[in-house]
Parts: sequence; structure tokens; C-alpha cells
Amino acid sequence: MDTQRRGTRAGEPGASGRPGARAVPPATVARLPGYLRALRGLTADGVVTTSSDELAGGAGVTPAQLRKDLSFLGSYGRRGVGYDVGHLSEQIAVVLGLTTQRSVVIVGIGNLGHALASYSVFAERGFAVVGLVDADPAVVGTTVAGLVVQPPDELASLVSGSDATIGIIATPASVAQDVCDALVAAGVVGILTFAPRALRVPPTVDLRAVDVASELQILAFHDRRRTGTGA
Amino acid sequence: MDTQRRGTRAGEPGASGRPGARAVPPATVARLPGYLRALRGLTADGVVTTSSDELAGGAGVTPAQLRKDLSFLGSYGRRGVGYDVGHLSEQIAVVLGLTTQRSVVIVGIGNLGHALASYSVFAERGFAVVGLVDADPAVVGTTVAGLVVQPPDELASLVSGSDATIGIIATPASVAQDVCDALVAAGVVGILTFAPRALRVPPTVDLRAVDVASELQILAFHDRRRTGTGA
Repeated sequence: MDTQRRGTRAGEPGASGRPGARAVPPATVARLPGYLRALRGLTADGVVTTSSDELAGGAGVTPAQLRKDLSFLGSYGRRGVGYDVGHLSEQIAVVLGLTTQRSVVIVGIGNLGHALASYSVFAERGFAVVGLVDADPAVVGTTVAGLVVQPPDELASLVSGSDATIGIIATPASVAQDVCDALVAAGVVGILTFAPRALRVPPTVDLRAVDVASELQILAFHDRRRTGTGA
Repeated sequence: MDTQRRGTRAGEPGASGRPGARAVPPATVARLPGYLRALRGLTADGVVTTSSDELAGGAGVTPAQLRKDLSFLGSYGRRGVGYDVGHLSEQIAVVLGLTTQRSVVIVGIGNLGHALASYSVFAERGFAVVGLVDADPAVVGTTVAGLVVQPPDELASLVSGSDATIGIIATPASVAQDVCDALVAAGVVGILTFAPRALRVPPTVDLRAVDVASELQILAFHDRRRTGTGA
């Protein structure tokens, strides 16, 4: 999956001088949500301490990778005891900035946008969907997941009015760059795009991209290599 | 985004002895769909030849990275002329195994599964959604994107009957591993999962994972570092 991150510099000192929040490499950051997810599963199962082996297994990485990643958080586990699940969850949540509720606006309320607007896991992780925008007059004014869909010229006031910092693009590729530009102009600092097109953002805005059709193409590559077909 | 690939070994000789299909590193494979997407955009605009600068810009990578990636395909461009758009598209499609239509089964027909079943870009890229499965009796028997949703015990015959090689998991996390096991048992060789949980697959099956909530968490991290909030 393409990641075009602007404004992030690995090796930068930890923000706010927070104890233990040393510079965290981007690859480690990308794995932290998986660790947090696994830790929350352990909490739900009533587990209080966990070993690097157990936590790594739950997150799909090697124990060595996990230990290395957590060392960037100043977290080393305790010999013979392991990691305290609650404490480590909190540490990771702080590093990820999840102790602050963040507001999200979704642009493009077709099938995918609809699914994202209703995705309960967002709220579980501290992300509130606060606005929906679509250009189709037939969609504007309808209610999705408790929110009334707004037209494009409401985007700027939606974003500023809700202090939304993240925009999600779920539009066709043809309009995605225009939507991206509008979100940036409205003041979001992070964008998650599902449009199958590489987008341009200024250095002050971070961009993550998911292209589900490309994901299938990558699977197809591995399948072709295994079976020798595809000519 | 987590990628757990089994059964892929970088450095393995090109399958089928196909000319120019030397071993392609996984990171390069992951970028090929983006190149193909950009090339198709150029084709749609009537562009016949492209420079590494132009193509790289359209794909969101540096020209140096693009040239290096394409060298693995035995494609070097021509000085002063660049790359032939049609030929390069074909080369990449062959390497990605896209010249063969591939069949996909989707398990979990909630909002996300519904969106994926209707996603027109799949068909544009040679992926046919041939089956839909859900455990909810209220969903089974309904028609989505022209397909009748089947119950779980039909999964195996759906997969074998359609020669589906790829399964998509769009279920809640709690059942995702069971669904994964069922898809593997049914014979798929590639799985794309959207469930927010690390899944286990045998070495013969490739797995790609998209966790949209984790994507937002990664954006939140970069936002926190920039603003210094999140305590």
C-alpha cells in the first residue's frame, strides 16, 4: 500500500519532551496500531501481563521485532514477567495521540463512504466521524449513520466547525485530487484516501492511501509466481 | 498496513522462465499496481510514450525509484524517448499475472462487503467477484451486485466451483480467523482481509491486510507529533 507521508521526519526528537517518547521510526509507527489492537484483545480476555512472544503472535510480528519497536517507546518489559498489558496499551495510545478524540470528515458517500461512515471500530479507537460530504444532489440531504450528507461547498465550514483534523476520500479517482485540495484548504492535517490514484499533498499534510484493487493485484502476483500461469 | 506474505521468497528466479521476469522484490511488487494505474491514466489521455519523471510523478514515487523498480522487469526505457506506455503496461500486467482473469469470493456482506461486491475497479483490473457469503440468515438469499448471498456451508463449493483463487474477508474481527481457515480449506491461495485482527495463514497462502482504523491511528500519530498534543 502506498504511503506518502509529508511532514514526518524519522529521527526527529520526541514531541513535547514526553518521557520515553523518543523518535519513533515510521515503520514502527505503522506497527503500533496492531500492537494496540492485540493488547485490547488481551484486556478483553482478562489478561494482565503478556510476554513478547504472546503479544508478537497476536500482532503477527516476530518477538524480536516487537521488542525492538517497543524499545523506541522506552518500554522494555520485565524479565520473567513481560509487559503490563494496561500500562503498555496506555503508552502506545499516548504515543499514537489517541488520548485525544479526533474528528473525521468523509467525502464521497457511495458504497464505500457509506461503509466507512458506519464503521464502529473508528469510534472504539477514538475517531468520531463528524461530517459527510457528497457532490451528488440525490445523496445530499440523506441521513447516513446519523449524519446529514452535506454538499461540497459546505466542506470548509464542516471541517472548521468540528475541528476535524482528518479527511477520508472515498470518491472516484477522477475527482480525488480536487477533493484532496479542498480538504487541505479546509485545514485537515491528515488524509486517508481510497481513490485509486496517487494524490499530491503539501508538506504539512500527511497522506495514507489504500487501493483495494492494487491489493488484489499484489495477491495475483504471488499466485502467478506459484502456479507459473499468467502468460 | 500489515502485510504478512507466506510463500513468497524474494530472490526466487522468475517463474516460467519468462524473458525479463527476473526475481522482483516484494517492495517493488507492491509499487507495480501504482505504476500500472498511472500508465492506464496516460493511455486514457492518449499519451504514447512517457518519461520516468512523468510516470513517477503520476505514481507518487521518485524517478530513481521507478527506474530501479522497472529494471527488475528488464525494462530500461530509451534515452531521449522514455517508456512506451502500451508496452510497459502489458509488461507490468504480465508480471502481476493480470492477463488471467481471477475470481474472488467475498465473505461478510455488511456495509464493507457490500461496497466491495459493487466495486467497479475490480472488474477493470481483471478481478471478477464470483461469490458472496454471509452468516446472517437475513442477508443470505438477498441479491448484491447481481449475486445471491450464500450461507457459510456453501463456501467450499462456491470457491471450487468458480476456481476462485482469492478470498476477501469483510467480517467482524471475532470470526475472521474462522473465516480465514474456511477460505484456506476451500482452496484460495490469496486472502485480503479488512478485519481488525492479525490472521494466521499457512505458508502456501498469501495474506494482505487493510485495517482502516489503524490507518487513522497512524495519521493521528503524525498529527500529534506536529501539534505536540495528545497527553
